[in-house]
This record gives sequence, C-alpha cells and structure tokens, in this order.
Amino acid sequence: MNSLDGVGVLGVGTSLFDRQPEATASALVWTAVDEALRDAEVSHVDAAYVGSVFGEMGVAQRALHPFGIHDVPVIRVENACASGTTAFHEAVHAVASGRYDTVLVVGVEHMTSRFTGPIPLEQRDPHGRAGLYLPSLYALAASRYLAERDVPADRLALVAVKNHANALLNDRTRPRGKVTLDDVLTSRMISDPLTVLQCAPVTDGAAAVVVGRYRPGRRDVRVRASALASGGPWDVGADLPWGQRLVGDVARLAYDQAGVEPADLDVVECHDAFTIGEVLVTESLGLAAYGEGMRLIEDGVTSLDGSIPVNPSGGLLGRGHPLGATGVAQLAEVIWQLRGDAGPRQVEDRRLGLVETMGGGVANLDGNACVVVVLEGASS
Amino acid sequence: MNSLDGVGVLGVGTSLFDRQPEATASALVWTAVDEALRDAEVSHVDAAYVGSVFGEMGVAQRALHPFGIHDVPVIRVENACASGTTAFHEAVHAVASGRYDTVLVVGVEHMTSRFTGPIPLEQRDPHGRAGLYLPSLYALAASRYLAERDVPADRLALVAVKNHANALLNDRTRPRGKVTLDDVLTSRMISDPLTVLQCAPVTDGAAAVVVGRYRPGRRDVRVRASALASGGPWDVGADLPWGQRLVGDVARLAYDQAGVEPADLDVVECHDAFTIGEVLVTESLGLAAYGEGMRLIEDGVTSLDGSIPVNPSGGLLGRGHPLGATGVAQLAEVIWQLRGDAGPRQVEDRRLGLVETMGGGVANLDGNACVVVVLEGASS
Repeated sequence: MNSLDGVGVLGVGTSLFDRQPEATASALVWTAVDEALRDAEVSHVDAAYVGSVFGEMGVAQRALHPFGIHDVPVIRVENACASGTTAFHEAVHAVASGRYDTVLVVGVEHMTSRFTGPIPLEQRDPHGRAGLYLPSLYALAASRYLAERDVPADRLALVAVKNHANALLNDRTRPRGKVTLDDVLTSRMISDPLTVLQCAPVTDGAAAVVVGRYRPGRRDVRVRASALASGGPWDVGADLPWGQRLVGDVARLAYDQAGVEPADLDVVECHDAFTIGEVLVTESLGLAAYGEGMRLIEDGVTSLDGSIPVNPSGGLLGRGHPLGATGVAQLAEVIWQLRGDAGPRQVEDRRLGLVETMGGGVANLDGNACVVVVLEGASS
Repeated sequence: MNSLDGVGVLGVGTSLFDRQPEATASALVWTAVDEALRDAEVSHVDAAYVGSVFGEMGVAQRALHPFGIHDVPVIRVENACASGTTAFHEAVHAVASGRYDTVLVVGVEHMTSRFTGPIPLEQRDPHGRAGLYLPSLYALAASRYLAERDVPADRLALVAVKNHANALLNDRTRPRGKVTLDDVLTSRMISDPLTVLQCAPVTDGAAAVVVGRYRPGRRDVRVRASALASGGPWDVGADLPWGQRLVGDVARLAYDQAGVEPADLDVVECHDAFTIGEVLVTESLGLAAYGEGMRLIEDGVTSLDGSIPVNPSGGLLGRGHPLGATGVAQLAEVIWQLRGDAGPRQVEDRRLGLVETMGGGVANLDGNACVVVVLEGASS
C-alpha cells in the first residue's frame, strides 16, 4: 500500500441535504463543488472521481463541465452506499502514488427522482426473492442483535434520538425538529423493530472534497489512512451480524496504516443508515466490545459532549442518505470538526477523526464494500 | 503521467457476445473471468475494476465473489460506452504506480434486460428534449459529414459490410451471416441515414483482462500507453463533428506516451457503434486526414488483409455492443491479434495494436469520455 505521507484534504463543500425534487443532480453538484474549490483555493484539478449509485450515464461529466473540469479524466465510481468514500479512496491513492497533484472528489444522488420508498433487494438474492427490502436486512440484524445481546427493543431508538438532536445543530440539513424517544418508538413501523425515525430518510444532496498535497500552514487536513475492501461470503449462521466482520477488517487495515488505535480517535462519522447500523459499526470499529455497543449510547460516550462523539452531523439518520453523496458528506463533517469549523456542534478534542461507510445491498456477501478513512487535523 | 514500463496484460477472456436474455450478468462474468484467470495463470488478484453502465448496485461484487475475489477492493466504474476501457485505464495506472501487482478488469452489460430499442438521450440535454435517441446524435454527425465531405450516403454502408464480414470469422459472437451492401441499405431505417445494419445491435456480454507486471518469455502483451479524458463543451458550430476533437486529443496523448505514430500501428479496434463512428474515429486517430476516412474503407486499407486492419473482430457493429463490456472486448481482440491467437481473422503484422473507445451520451459535451490504449506484442 502506498504511503499517504503528504496527502491532504484541501477543501470541502456540500449542498443542502434534504428532499429537493425541484433541483437537478447538476445543480446540487454545482453548489458543493463551488464551495469546495473556493475553500481549497485551487483553480485546477488533474482529475475527478464522482461517486453516484443511481446517476444517469454522464452524470459526472454533465455536472463538472460548467467548472471547466473537462479534457481531464472524469470517472464515475459505484460501490453502493460507499460510492462517495470509494471515490475519495481512489483520489487519495492517485495523489499518494504521484499520478495526480490535485483531484476533485464528488458524491451526488438525486434520490427523490428515483425512489418514493425503501430500495428493494435484487431478485437474484435469496432475501430479494423473499420480497425483502434493504431496511429488512438491517431489521434482521437488529432482531438478532437484540435477542442475542439481551437488549430491550426500545433501547435502539436512543441512537435516533441522539442523531436527530445533533442534526438540529447542522445548517446543511433541514432537521425534523426535536425528536423524543417516544416519537421514535411510535413512528410508523418500516421493518420490525425499525420504525421510520430509525431509518435514514430519502434525501437529495451532493458533497465535494479536494484532495491534494498537504500544504503546511494552511487549513488542510492530513489523510492518515484510507482502506477499502469488498465483503466476502456471509450467511445467517456467521458469528457476527451482517457487515460486522467486513467493517472490523477494514478498520484494522486503516488503524494499522495510520498507526493509531480506536482510543486515539476524537470524532467519528459512521454508517447509521439505520439505528442498528451505528451500534454494529461502533463495535466493529473497536469503540466498544462486541455486544457492548448500546452502552456507548446509554452512557453518553458517543454524544456530542461525550469522550468520542459519533455522528455529530446528525449522521445518515439526521442529515439523510443520498447514497453516493453520503460518504463525502461524512468526510466534510469530520474535516469541519478537525478544523474547528463545526459551529454549535463543534467537538472539543479535534486531532484525529474517522469516517466509515458501509455499502450493502448483496445479502449473501458481508457487504459490497466498506471504506474507513482516518484524518488528522492541523492542531495536532 | 506514470511510466507504464513493465505493465502487461497477462490474460484475457470473454463470454459469447449475443442476445442472451436467459443469462445473468454474473453468469457472463463467470465465463469471461474464468477464461482470463486461466489464460493469465494467476490465482490471486489484488483488486478488481468492473466497467458497467446499467449494472445494478453490487453487480461487481456479486459476480466476483464466487472466484474468491473479495476482501480486496472491488470497484465499479462508469464512463458510458468507455466504461470497460476506463476500468482498464485505472488498473494499468494502479499497477504502474506500484499500488497493486495484479488487477482484474471486467466489463459487463446485460442489455436485453434493460433495453428493447435505442437508448434515449437525457431530457436535460437539448437533443434529449427534442426527442432524439443516441443513434440520432450519430445520424446528425453522419448527415453533416456526408454533406460537408461530399460523400454519397450509400458509401457509409461499406463500413457495415466490412465489419459484418469480419464478424463471420469470430466465434465469440453469432454473426448475422453474410451481409451485402444491398442488405445494409435496404434494412430498416433507424435515424436517417443510418439503417439498422449500420447500428450496433443490443447485445449481452462480458469480457475480462488481467493486468500485471509484464513477464518476459510469456505470452504477455505490453501496455505502451493508456490515455483518458472527458470531453469539453461542444456545439453544432464546431469545426469537427461531435466527438472528433476529443478522440484526436486523447489519441495524441496516447501516441506521445507510447512514442509511436499512427503509421506504426498494425491493428486497431475502435468505436464503430454506428458506421459513421468508424469513419470519424479513424480520421481522429490519424489513419486518414479529416474528410478522407471513407477512402480507408473504399480502398480496403482497413480490411482484414489491408495495411491497417480496423475492427477485425467485427467491431461493435458485428460483435454487438454491451456497453460496459465493449472496451474490454476490444482489448481482448487486439491482445489475441498481437499474440497470434486470432485464428481465421488473424492479421499479418502484429507488433503494435490500438484500442479506442468513445463514450457519448451528453450532447452538449464532446463526449463523456474517450480512452485510447496502445499495446505491443511480444513478437516485437
């Protein structure tokens, strides 16, 4: 693996994250890229990677040519929910290897023009043939987790309360307002035990970051690690619920690359597409032992004022989940946090941050892809 | 740009290219990847790039995990018709930079489950709003070319006669049988002047190549150049028809990287999605002066026994055009030719080969992406 010494994030930007049926993907990208290029103070990029799952053919080129970003490689990548962080991963390693100096990373998804409800699973998967939707996969994991770990079902809802509260402090989204435990538990059931307020909402959005050579004395954030792997075979008899092994393996790769351990982290954005997701992922990241993830929530460890805030942005539950945009929006949040730019949701310690994105969708694999990124702020 | 010294193609494979509605994308990939891995005599790859335009979320991981290709990065890329060659381009530069030793490249498209007829243009493009389809873009270019270059409309059909004749010698496709000039001209009109036999048919297929470190003494083919760029703005008042400037610019990058000139080439596979495509592209590649491309066909220069055979496989017209698979199938053909494995369609001189793929679909850009690859056989 290439050394990432000297690779930095030079600038970030996002559109609003909300239902924006009246906007086009290109309009959302315009807002995000314009902000990122100004923030980075760069006027030229050598290439662009664009993460988008459902974008039509040409979505990348269409969105970028108004910036004069053409006659260079512009490549769309897709890795389910991890598409945006996959784009970032490719950009980071392209800069690390000396292939490019400056690379634009974009994530975009215009969900409201494609979906009105949950995403169905492929008919080729056994779960898909059984009529299940993507939320059902997480609901199965949740049911198993709650039963095996002896956790009352209403405890999971605390994840949604925390993340919706964080979203209230995030002006890049239009939060639902104050969300109580009772609100979460009595909201519409999607797939037992997951109520609608425990599921990331259908949202449109775009986000962008500029990756390049770290510039000392600027507000750049160092990239300490970026690891990516696709999942291996998984079946219902596996020791851990769906996805946990993959996230754990990729996190280990990232920690080793960065030379850090979970206890060193100051802030985390992770894949809480459903409440159970944050519990499983925080365990896989090593923030708690397996089976102990709920305690992070119950004890306030991962709250905004806890020792390791998780999803200060509101996460996918609070900010929404435009698939291709999500990973880049997670990066943007951690970068703002590490720079001290996070305003009312600023965390206190801000040396090391982590982003984790889990791309699912194939039920017989332990996830399509997982990306884990470790970033280091200039204050260190 | 990284030096490509020491980068080779170690093995290739393809499925049948035909309408195969009964097959799944994964089944087609299985056939292609199994052949490529055996051909390369490798049992491990460090990563995989999968080119697919319309593949569902997870198509890449789903297709590869039966080979044990998981727990490594598996990334789907999309660049319209150039998706397969984009995947190859990323693999080549990843090996060149030392990031990976061995990378699998796959192209796949199951077209018959998505399309029954021509692909519509996006409503966001002016051409799309006018109700035009992708063939219409090429038809507009053809009409303009024929008028400006004073070429009788029936001459274009000769491209189809040549390529369908080549396909008769290709056992990786099920050709239509002998196709005469009269057959082409009297076949159903799709978009004037392009009749159906001048349009690449809806086809399902997959292809794979293994990229790695060139192994002297083996049958490996050297990668001398791989260039990629997205198109800049284009309008109907441009000097050259749609796409020609982009192809010319990318070809120049590739020639410079390889240190060769068009006259050095022995065999070419290029993007003849429509008859006019081959004429425009061969000019942009420098095989003929602008406006002189028809002469290559009329004089037999690009015939199988000509001085620079173009599309010996039958091309997209004869072999079909499963979008994501096309570029990788073009690579497979040139590699077979350079290795002397092309059987009844083997070209005589086989030192240097070129692959060009043009990805279109955005009418106000000079193409979404173009990739040009230069390969060198061991016989040199």
